[in-house]
Amino acid sequence: MPAKEVNPDLQKERNTATFNPHEFSVFWAGGEDRYKEKKALEKMFLEDPALQDDLPISYLSHKELYEHSLRKACIIGEKIRKLRADGEDGVDTYNALLGGSLGAAILKEGNPLALHYVMFVPTIMGQGTMEQQVEWLSKAWDCEIIGTYAQTELGHGTFLRGLETRADYDPKTQEFVINTPTLSAYKWWPGGLGHTANHAVVVAQLYTKGEFRGLAPFIVQLRDSDTHKPMPGIDIGDIGTKLGMKAVNNGYLGLKNVRVPLNNMLMKNQQVLPDGTYVAPKNSVLTYGTMMFVRCALIRDTAQSLAKSSTIATRYSAVRRQSPIDPNQPEPQIMDHTTQQLKLFPQIAKAIVFKTTGDGIWNMYNVISGEIEQGNLDRLPEMHALSCCLKAVCSADAAAGVETCRLSCGGHGFMDCSNFPTIYGMTTAVCTYEGENTVMLLQTARYLVKVYGQALNGEKLVPTVAYINEALSQQKFVNFDGSLESIVKAFQFVAANKTRIAYEQIELRRKQGHGTEVAANLCGTFLTAAADLHARAFLAQSAYTELLAVSREVSPALGDVLKVVLELYLVDACLNRIGDFLRFIDLTDQDVTKLEVRLESCLKRLRPNAVALVDSFDLHDRVLDSALGAYDGNVYEHIFESTKKNPLNKEPVNGSFHKYLKPFMKAHL
Amino acid sequence: MPAKEVNPDLQKERNTATFNPHEFSVFWAGGEDRYKEKKALEKMFLEDPALQDDLPISYLSHKELYEHSLRKACIIGEKIRKLRADGEDGVDTYNALLGGSLGAAILKEGNPLALHYVMFVPTIMGQGTMEQQVEWLSKAWDCEIIGTYAQTELGHGTFLRGLETRADYDPKTQEFVINTPTLSAYKWWPGGLGHTANHAVVVAQLYTKGEFRGLAPFIVQLRDSDTHKPMPGIDIGDIGTKLGMKAVNNGYLGLKNVRVPLNNMLMKNQQVLPDGTYVAPKNSVLTYGTMMFVRCALIRDTAQSLAKSSTIATRYSAVRRQSPIDPNQPEPQIMDHTTQQLKLFPQIAKAIVFKTTGDGIWNMYNVISGEIEQGNLDRLPEMHALSCCLKAVCSADAAAGVETCRLSCGGHGFMDCSNFPTIYGMTTAVCTYEGENTVMLLQTARYLVKVYGQALNGEKLVPTVAYINEALSQQKFVNFDGSLESIVKAFQFVAANKTRIAYEQIELRRKQGHGTEVAANLCGTFLTAAADLHARAFLAQSAYTELLAVSREVSPALGDVLKVVLELYLVDACLNRIGDFLRFIDLTDQDVTKLEVRLESCLKRLRPNAVALVDSFDLHDRVLDSALGAYDGNVYEHIFESTKKNPLNKEPVNGSFHKYLKPFMKAHL
Repeated sequence: MPAKEVNPDLQKERNTATFNPHEFSVFWAGGEDRYKEKKALEKMFLEDPALQDDLPISYLSHKELYEHSLRKACIIGEKIRKLRADGEDGVDTYNALLGGSLGAAILKEGNPLALHYVMFVPTIMGQGTMEQQVEWLSKAWDCEIIGTYAQTELGHGTFLRGLETRADYDPKTQEFVINTPTLSAYKWWPGGLGHTANHAVVVAQLYTKGEFRGLAPFIVQLRDSDTHKPMPGIDIGDIGTKLGMKAVNNGYLGLKNVRVPLNNMLMKNQQVLPDGTYVAPKNSVLTYGTMMFVRCALIRDTAQSLAKSSTIATRYSAVRRQSPIDPNQPEPQIMDHTTQQLKLFPQIAKAIVFKTTGDGIWNMYNVISGEIEQGNLDRLPEMHALSCCLKAVCSADAAAGVETCRLSCGGHGFMDCSNFPTIYGMTTAVCTYEGENTVMLLQTARYLVKVYGQALNGEKLVPTVAYINEALSQQKFVNFDGSLESIVKAFQFVAANKTRIAYEQIELRRKQGHGTEVAANLCGTFLTAAADLHARAFLAQSAYTELLAVSREVSPALGDVLKVVLELYLVDACLNRIGDFLRFIDLTDQDVTKLEVRLESCLKRLRPNAVALVDSFDLHDRVLDSALGAYDGNVYEHIFESTKKNPLNKEPVNGSFHKYLKPFMKAHL
Repeated sequence: MPAKEVNPDLQKERNTATFNPHEFSVFWAGGEDRYKEKKALEKMFLEDPALQDDLPISYLSHKELYEHSLRKACIIGEKIRKLRADGEDGVDTYNALLGGSLGAAILKEGNPLALHYVMFVPTIMGQGTMEQQVEWLSKAWDCEIIGTYAQTELGHGTFLRGLETRADYDPKTQEFVINTPTLSAYKWWPGGLGHTANHAVVVAQLYTKGEFRGLAPFIVQLRDSDTHKPMPGIDIGDIGTKLGMKAVNNGYLGLKNVRVPLNNMLMKNQQVLPDGTYVAPKNSVLTYGTMMFVRCALIRDTAQSLAKSSTIATRYSAVRRQSPIDPNQPEPQIMDHTTQQLKLFPQIAKAIVFKTTGDGIWNMYNVISGEIEQGNLDRLPEMHALSCCLKAVCSADAAAGVETCRLSCGGHGFMDCSNFPTIYGMTTAVCTYEGENTVMLLQTARYLVKVYGQALNGEKLVPTVAYINEALSQQKFVNFDGSLESIVKAFQFVAANKTRIAYEQIELRRKQGHGTEVAANLCGTFLTAAADLHARAFLAQSAYTELLAVSREVSPALGDVLKVVLELYLVDACLNRIGDFLRFIDLTDQDVTKLEVRLESCLKRLRPNAVALVDSFDLHDRVLDSALGAYDGNVYEHIFESTKKNPLNKEPVNGSFHKYLKPFMKAHL
């Protein structure tokens, strides 16, 4: 029973909004041109009947899901070929199709070909010599070969030097002999590795002339190009079902005396000569670039997760009615409960702040990576530190935010037809991949402690940590007047003090006789706390700068709403770390109450525009894929429709009744 | 390759523990007799080959999973029949089999027959007259009929008065006519309703003689007892796939002019006479009893979730090695990273505290429900308030704790073979069912604000809120010396102040002209915060009392460990609410640092016994069902074994290669 009319409660919200969502949608898409591109891609992909599902994929078995997803991945691949032929295959298109919202609308549990495009091809481009690029790239672009990137092992993740896979050069045949000598050396996790890819870049410990040379990447053929049978010495398969990313075909790979020609080692940065002579890379620091690139991109992904889940939960909360506020009145829209507002609106605000911060960081990355290519590495450590902690904090906050939105929808959020379980699986995964969050925070903290020492010595620090200089010049933070600017400043003061404490605790342990590294481990929780606050101080500053700038560029009506978003974000962020604020800044009980009352006021002021704000994210119903969050708000109808697709409901009596239940019920008669 | 030997890193942990885990296991089981019973039940159920799975259920489709689960549910039902016949079907047995760890070992995504035993039968016992019990109970006990309990509707959950399903009495035929007049009136969620049950207790709005009488329960036959076909007027099915509890067969139910005889209304509390005369219940308060009972039981379930997940993560962290602390040393067990300890050990402590608190609350419930049966309702509001907020806080903390444990295992925690995804689904569900957590906190808060007013008027409050009297008699909290007792006292002082602020804020809104209910809604976030602290103050007090008592009863070796557990729990709990502590109690930056250093010290002192503690939970490998958490610690072998069961890996080349991938790869050639 597809209902065409918009639910009246939802329509009322749209009628009373004070700004034009379209204006924000265009900003959100990145401008008028991007907005049009987005709409064109949506038309091209989402209206193709071959890319639509009759049966929700949650009803498929793991094996069926893989087969279903590979079929669609090939259709997408074919369309990408066409876009390439037409010269329309820009980076944005790839992002949208493989990582972004459009890709999620088609293959919401991931694409088994994604790693081919986002890791295999770029690795050849980044690490192959010109000749190697000529040899491999056209085959890869044309998908004549399908590749993946195999680095992580069953026993080894973040700590790359611990990898066990080894490649021994044999000058007699001019080949490398690659082995995974133990079970824990098996490559584990690469997307598409299970049954999809027939090639991989395999990262291994290189040995030539009997000497260890460090890590190197090798192109290895995994499967026969005609039969797809595993090549000799290759033990390969799918690692199994997971919390999320269920269709990615993550695989395992064991190698036993697998020989690849000398030229299959990607040699742009380091070389092995035919006689086995090793030529070391000039600059090992360059690999940081890719990692920073990916982490910066991930920050924007977390914004997208929050946009999706807050859209679903906000629309649902406008339609759902429950629990009278006044016992003599009918049940209100649940969005009128202040407790519900506190669940939803901060997620909307975070979506916006993470997006604008992600854009800002992206620009910063481009500037700095330009400097790096010119040989200027000055800002590399700063950028690395910032990208690490922002990746950690944004992914953790986004995952928590998705769950808050889900829980705000009560039992209905628990159903797969809400789409929350899939969004959560995809979002929480970001906490672990591309650098596990705690490891990320520790990397940032190491930098913070180091620059804190420099600041103590009177050095002037680089921009993103300059607040440490400032804090050292103050005895106390005196000007907390509750203005947004003073909240930002206070965040920085608090962050500087968290770094101070981490620094002092490490020094204390060193004085007690521990080495620096052991001391740092003992102080691990002080370090992660400092890095967390560094990220939050940056987010506060970035929210303040970016949102005020945007609000000046847009119409006054939209600008006013964005100012409320900013205030809500900052007050909420401050209250979430109020322990740290009270610890380092003289605030009274009444000051805190004032902030809490102000939070309530922000919620109330945002309430009339909440639906319009999530409408502004302009997420296609196929992207949301949620019975609770569809644009028309016909929540109960959509939920009920979804049950009609349930294969269990296709027959009135399930076969198990006759097989098991009836004999059991009649057994004693 | 099933490995028999225990992983040496794990064995080393066991060898160096300072206490005997068996002693704790017996305490944990509830004494020697219970421990033996538990072992006997494990033998009877877990060694039955018919109850073992060759294929992990994560590889089944939704429909296959239902059929698989119903088969096992019938075998369990048959064994319960046998236990009944032997007179061995005590409450503990039911708990273990249907809700507890043993049930989870057999049907980890839930049992489609569970609601028959835990809701259908007890409702008839609690709400049926003696004659009705005679008529229905033996059929129900013998499983000649299978029932469920249908209350929640698609559009109506927590607020029972909003239910739309109605029963109109027709005195001519002496029947009720039951209808779900709208889509949103459809019953939604009852376990086993989809395709399993053939009867249900349906809760509906009762009308007799054209007048509304309130809610009443009716036994309705849903399906034909021979053919299992839905009865006339019954629209019924499974609601679809979900985040967790995937095998429960949650169903929907529409009723259209379904007629049931007069005697199908359960009439212990209220009656309808043949002519339609309505006899109202004497005491409507009695229904609180069941809800409190369930909530008290849930607290113990949350302890079980934490026990499971901390066992898996702790064993894994003893086996996994990663990231050198000292660059000149090999990679350590990850449990040696302080940051990892902070993820794991507080979950162990919470498991223990929630368990002992759950036991304590259970005893308190039994005392008070005895009083209630004697007609003494004095302590009912207090008990209701306490059970509400504890249900909310323990379930929220447990769900967060499960996720912390999962994330502590990095990527491997993301795999279904870790069992974390299932444990999370089961645990987070508790946040929503049996009273959504925010609603629960608001119920408690309403009580707190009320008694706060009484205390202001000089009234002496009942035991669990007496700390409010005490706080009112103090201007300041002066004796924070960091002792465990002072942390408990400080928690109470802080809780009293949170209630004070909620009270003051409501009064303020009332003075501004809002009615009490609207004022309370505006102050919703103040109210939930007060209830949260009330629960945490109770948990702190209970941890202190119960664990000190236990530690005096057990051997000194075990007692010493439990004291560290207690200290860790309290210091961690305090630091997690340090903002509230700093707000109401004069603490300096140095005081906080001291607490943080003390937390680190607790972690270090617990480290040698962490594995022994989780061993003490005595969770059978089948209960854990985790490649990461098995007793033998052969993590990588178990993970690898699990991939061998993956149906995708049964054939070297998946059919989709020939169907989709090869044509795509060769398309351009």
